[in-house]
Amino acid sequence: MTDSYLLTPGPLTTSDRVKRAALKDWGSRDADFIALTQSVRTRLLDIANATTGYTTVPVQGSGTFAVEAMLGTFAPPDAKTLVLVNGAYGRRIAEILEILERPFDIYETDEVVAPSPEAVSKRLAADPGLACVVMVHCETTSGIQNPLSEIARIVRSAGRQLLVDAMSTFGAIPIDAGSTPFAALAASANKCLQGVPGVGFVICDTEVLETRSRASHSLSLDLWAQWRGFEGNGQWRFTPPTHVLACLAEALDELEAEGGPESRVARYRKNCDLLISGMAQRGFRTLVPRALQAPIIVTFESPTGPDWDFEAFYQALKARGYSIYPGKLTKLDSFRIGCIGALDQSVFEGVLTAIDEAYAELRDVCARE
Amino acid sequence: MTDSYLLTPGPLTTSDRVKRAALKDWGSRDADFIALTQSVRTRLLDIANATTGYTTVPVQGSGTFAVEAMLGTFAPPDAKTLVLVNGAYGRRIAEILEILERPFDIYETDEVVAPSPEAVSKRLAADPGLACVVMVHCETTSGIQNPLSEIARIVRSAGRQLLVDAMSTFGAIPIDAGSTPFAALAASANKCLQGVPGVGFVICDTEVLETRSRASHSLSLDLWAQWRGFEGNGQWRFTPPTHVLACLAEALDELEAEGGPESRVARYRKNCDLLISGMAQRGFRTLVPRALQAPIIVTFESPTGPDWDFEAFYQALKARGYSIYPGKLTKLDSFRIGCIGALDQSVFEGVLTAIDEAYAELRDVCARE
Repeated sequence: MTDSYLLTPGPLTTSDRVKRAALKDWGSRDADFIALTQSVRTRLLDIANATTGYTTVPVQGSGTFAVEAMLGTFAPPDAKTLVLVNGAYGRRIAEILEILERPFDIYETDEVVAPSPEAVSKRLAADPGLACVVMVHCETTSGIQNPLSEIARIVRSAGRQLLVDAMSTFGAIPIDAGSTPFAALAASANKCLQGVPGVGFVICDTEVLETRSRASHSLSLDLWAQWRGFEGNGQWRFTPPTHVLACLAEALDELEAEGGPESRVARYRKNCDLLISGMAQRGFRTLVPRALQAPIIVTFESPTGPDWDFEAFYQALKARGYSIYPGKLTKLDSFRIGCIGALDQSVFEGVLTAIDEAYAELRDVCARE
Repeated sequence: MTDSYLLTPGPLTTSDRVKRAALKDWGSRDADFIALTQSVRTRLLDIANATTGYTTVPVQGSGTFAVEAMLGTFAPPDAKTLVLVNGAYGRRIAEILEILERPFDIYETDEVVAPSPEAVSKRLAADPGLACVVMVHCETTSGIQNPLSEIARIVRSAGRQLLVDAMSTFGAIPIDAGSTPFAALAASANKCLQGVPGVGFVICDTEVLETRSRASHSLSLDLWAQWRGFEGNGQWRFTPPTHVLACLAEALDELEAEGGPESRVARYRKNCDLLISGMAQRGFRTLVPRALQAPIIVTFESPTGPDWDFEAFYQALKARGYSIYPGKLTKLDSFRIGCIGALDQSVFEGVLTAIDEAYAELRDVCARE
């Protein structure tokens, strides 16, 4: 089967090696699958340098399921959570807290502006009712990287708890639980870990998790109960996506073979640099200041000329084997191209050529009309 | 890779054809994946003869995620739900309603006794505060088949709503929405549909679903919101398990090629009959009366002799390539053997031979000790 290259924030292009791990059926209560689960849980801790004092709780479903599980288990019902918002995923966190009826305040910055650690510090100092802070590491709405380490240190020194949505960075942009303390951090198999979608996970501070018995609004998404289950008999409480988990285990082998997150993010940076400079030569402007741009996904301002038609551009690229992504910014017409997945620089050279062809096609169509 | 045959209530043995559908990456917002999702949604309606007045809402995660989504969306917050309980899955429904703070009553029968339609009728007549009834079609705790059609007709004629957990029957034991009306019915890809685990779905009466805006306790598990999303742009609100869904589409092709649910359940019946008669010859007694036994999974009473050791028996069978399942009954020591999955009679002839060998091995070990 010939696939398009998926230049998106995920699901993204995975290797054949990872996908072929789905060719085996596993009994979810058999010893070998229990061992597989345990190994994945431990290896995810290794990636975050969180082997001491932390535990991984996998959650079936998409990344949002893991984020909702994290909020339902950790956001206090009787004290406020400060939500840092500069894009759709921050807003989604606020939406979940609203549905869960957990009190929260919002600290919002523009979609291309990072939250200020100083502002967070001041808010925490001014409001003792804030018990918790939740932030998104990289907002794929724009592609901005938010200052996780700085904010983590401020939250810790203010004696509050930090919850992190690290969906689109985990496995690439290094996160060290030693220097970046958090109460919980949610991510997913199918972003920088380059597994297939269907499972997320939350890395939890074990001491904090221990206090969260019956905190969840949900049976399925209760991280405390799932953690007790794993500690008891090693089993998932409810049927796990066995094939997806086997692919994740293979993807973790692949990450190790690549040299770990540092090597992976170096490859993504090369992809990103090649893409941005190539697009700049073609007159496409990025939205996020270079210093804040994560090497995950890049937002480009849509051209304003009469020959621009995103849908036609998208289809012309798709016909050439490249799937790009629409924009998600609230203010400005834009589109996005992802840098992550089992893709190297040759793919980005290819997409730039395809963009030339697609853009020429658009101009021709427009000239004829 | 050589797999064990999974003689369990799922995840179960799937065909190579189904698993190979995981070898392609899909862009979740691309037109071809939107078409795949739409086709799966429609074909699931066809299976339940629910093409008019019903809609399918897929849900990421295990079957329990789909059941919780169904309860969160449909169980009323201000009127009682009657939960029919004769096993672990009925009890789980009550547990979910408890967490969701939705009022409910329980009508419990013994694990090997089906709920009485007459008793349900009387309860509904006696208590106008009961707005909803929820039941499990086949309780894999014991393997009992509950009288779905009879109860569905009673609930409908009493003007109440029926919610069904058809997890372990959908795709095999025929369910006809025409003669078995329901407000919602939850099932999963990885039982009788013979897909891989990671996605469930709820078939919803569209008119009832329309009234359930903002009813859910959860963002991720909100069936109304997911339905509006599908009707809007055909997309999943949150990353779907693309590979798992592609496997489900392939599994639906396979079901059609087999001749639909009637042919599939005929194969399962042959498996089940061969198993029960073979086990009877070997002195193993079933727990569920024959007339109530679903051809899904069979519970056998554990032998009481000194040479019985379930764990050793399990391991001896596993070493021969057969994964069976521990018991789940509350009262009696038992074990279970499933009849479903991509398995034909030759597998059940094989497992009977393996059981002879395993049992002989147990006796030898015991004699030596």
